[in-house]
Amino acid sequence: MLGRRRRLALLAEGRFTPFDAKTAVGVLRYRPEQVVAVIDSTRAGRTAAECVGVGGAIPVVADAPAAAARGADSLAIGIAPQGGGLPEAWRAVVREALGRGWDVLSGLHVFLADDPELAAVAARHGGRILDLRRPPEHRIVAAARATELDAIVVLTVGSDCNVGKMTAALELARALEQRGARAAFVATGQTGIMIADRGVAVDAVVSDFAAGAIEDLVLGAGREAEVVIVEGQGALHHPGYSGVTLSLLAGSCPRAMILCHHAGRAAIRTAEGAPHEIPIPPLEELARAYETAAAWLRPARVVGVALNTLDLGEAAARAACEAAERELALPATDPVRFGAGPLADAVLALKGRTHAPHA
Amino acid sequence: MLGRRRRLALLAEGRFTPFDAKTAVGVLRYRPEQVVAVIDSTRAGRTAAECVGVGGAIPVVADAPAAAARGADSLAIGIAPQGGGLPEAWRAVVREALGRGWDVLSGLHVFLADDPELAAVAARHGGRILDLRRPPEHRIVAAARATELDAIVVLTVGSDCNVGKMTAALELARALEQRGARAAFVATGQTGIMIADRGVAVDAVVSDFAAGAIEDLVLGAGREAEVVIVEGQGALHHPGYSGVTLSLLAGSCPRAMILCHHAGRAAIRTAEGAPHEIPIPPLEELARAYETAAAWLRPARVVGVALNTLDLGEAAARAACEAAERELALPATDPVRFGAGPLADAVLALKGRTHAPHA
Repeated sequence: MLGRRRRLALLAEGRFTPFDAKTAVGVLRYRPEQVVAVIDSTRAGRTAAECVGVGGAIPVVADAPAAAARGADSLAIGIAPQGGGLPEAWRAVVREALGRGWDVLSGLHVFLADDPELAAVAARHGGRILDLRRPPEHRIVAAARATELDAIVVLTVGSDCNVGKMTAALELARALEQRGARAAFVATGQTGIMIADRGVAVDAVVSDFAAGAIEDLVLGAGREAEVVIVEGQGALHHPGYSGVTLSLLAGSCPRAMILCHHAGRAAIRTAEGAPHEIPIPPLEELARAYETAAAWLRPARVVGVALNTLDLGEAAARAACEAAERELALPATDPVRFGAGPLADAVLALKGRTHAPHA
Repeated sequence: MLGRRRRLALLAEGRFTPFDAKTAVGVLRYRPEQVVAVIDSTRAGRTAAECVGVGGAIPVVADAPAAAARGADSLAIGIAPQGGGLPEAWRAVVREALGRGWDVLSGLHVFLADDPELAAVAARHGGRILDLRRPPEHRIVAAARATELDAIVVLTVGSDCNVGKMTAALELARALEQRGARAAFVATGQTGIMIADRGVAVDAVVSDFAAGAIEDLVLGAGREAEVVIVEGQGALHHPGYSGVTLSLLAGSCPRAMILCHHAGRAAIRTAEGAPHEIPIPPLEELARAYETAAAWLRPARVVGVALNTLDLGEAAARAACEAAERELALPATDPVRFGAGPLADAVLALKGRTHAPHA
């Protein structure tokens, strides 16, 4: 991962739950072979699977020394505080890890390598600080260049942050490859970058160049693949992040979108201090909003729905997918629980068509 | 301007024309009393008015020494290259200015104060480098807090970049004050910041915090004013900058919008290498797009149209405004040529209404 095979300790102090520890859960689901321990002193002694449903018997430990006893050689920050700073409580763990000569992988908005204290510890002990959100040096203004690709570009879009856009994209890529299609996953957030070993954290790019950074990634991926699946971010209805979402749409110029939603979530999760709740619109209205925004540059349809049914029992999860299928007249699935096959089939049905499909 | 009253030389080398030298023209129109010369060796000997229609008899000179002879004490970069870097040809002028102990005001994406050579010259001679695009230190995630303001928030939106959104906002503020309303102009770009002496260049803010930076400015302005006029940026249909535009909508949660357009422009000005032309939609379709996007957070109407009729004769300009009025059934004006009175009246008609007006 990011330069070499690792023996990772994932920092998730106090928050090793399925929704709080988004990065840790993503790495445990897609790169478990590189994780030796999760650090959360409030849950030490349990297994990863007991806490978040993935990661099997990987142990939760109290601190960096305990992770070292399991053979860790790198620390990855597995939680993303809103606002992007380094909480004081975590600084001690990072310092401890660097003091052991470990590499530290961070997706925080604040760059740890620019912190004089941490940089000095890293230099003294030979570890590296990898700030995954550090934007690319080149500044590109997007110009709808992705419309020229022969590859089918698919963007995952959603009802809110943290509803499963990265997971849907990864599962879709896997299902496409199982069907013999050359699929490329384009990572646009810190967790995706840890998993894919490359990508750009679009939310950390200066806003004039956010679409351009994505365009550059998509053009690169489209040279090799038949289908390019771009990890979406934010939501058009999110008061804080809608600009990031639209930059992704403009930079990737998708031919199709997968609409992602956390089944049962009724309101957008806003920053503290929001004056009122922002309800999540019905799926059909969401799909229409994304198709409207896509058409500002290039018409594209939502071709399938990915539901995160983590909170539901099996029967309720199936019922939720069926209800979404009826509402939108499109395939719907929980790609983790039931597989992304129906989404892959919907995407492959676009092959050979040179224009966006119309309903 | 930015700390003190200045005697500015405006750098517009080779490009002192109405559309290329956007920043220079804005400063000449709204702060001419602080400008002593414009530097463009290809047009030396003419007046500002002869080149760009504003700035009266302010002379165009060949270089910094000639501007010094006019009493200049600061250099402002008056042109904005796409991509945001410092062209090599300008570096010599900046160095020369700093060598004379002048301050340098720059709105480039690349921060001149971070350039070791330029920083050293500034330090040696006592001048300051003011990078207007430097984003605020605090990282705020927007949460639709601006919906709580009693003040009427108005956002200027447009068909493309560089169509007159800043000018429309400034003229609207002036017309509102002439009508006795307390109006505040919120600058969101480098030129606006030079004119208003404060603001945030939203396109230079990391995209996760772009809406939050605007929200913070709008809340501050709304404490004092009855009407807050936010300078728009980019366009929803622009492939490079649409994310910036949506961040502005989300951060400011306007109650009304003014649609700005450069009369006669048919296609969006994209970066070099764009694979095809992107046509500008009809005004009515543009208005609907902005109202759709606004409604994702808070319903808002376009209440007037500001046309830039610079390329047209008087009769054609009047005809263009009348055509826009008919098309949208809204007041339309060129705010520079004919005044922003009709726009101010449309905004004041919202007073007392607590919700967005419906047509």
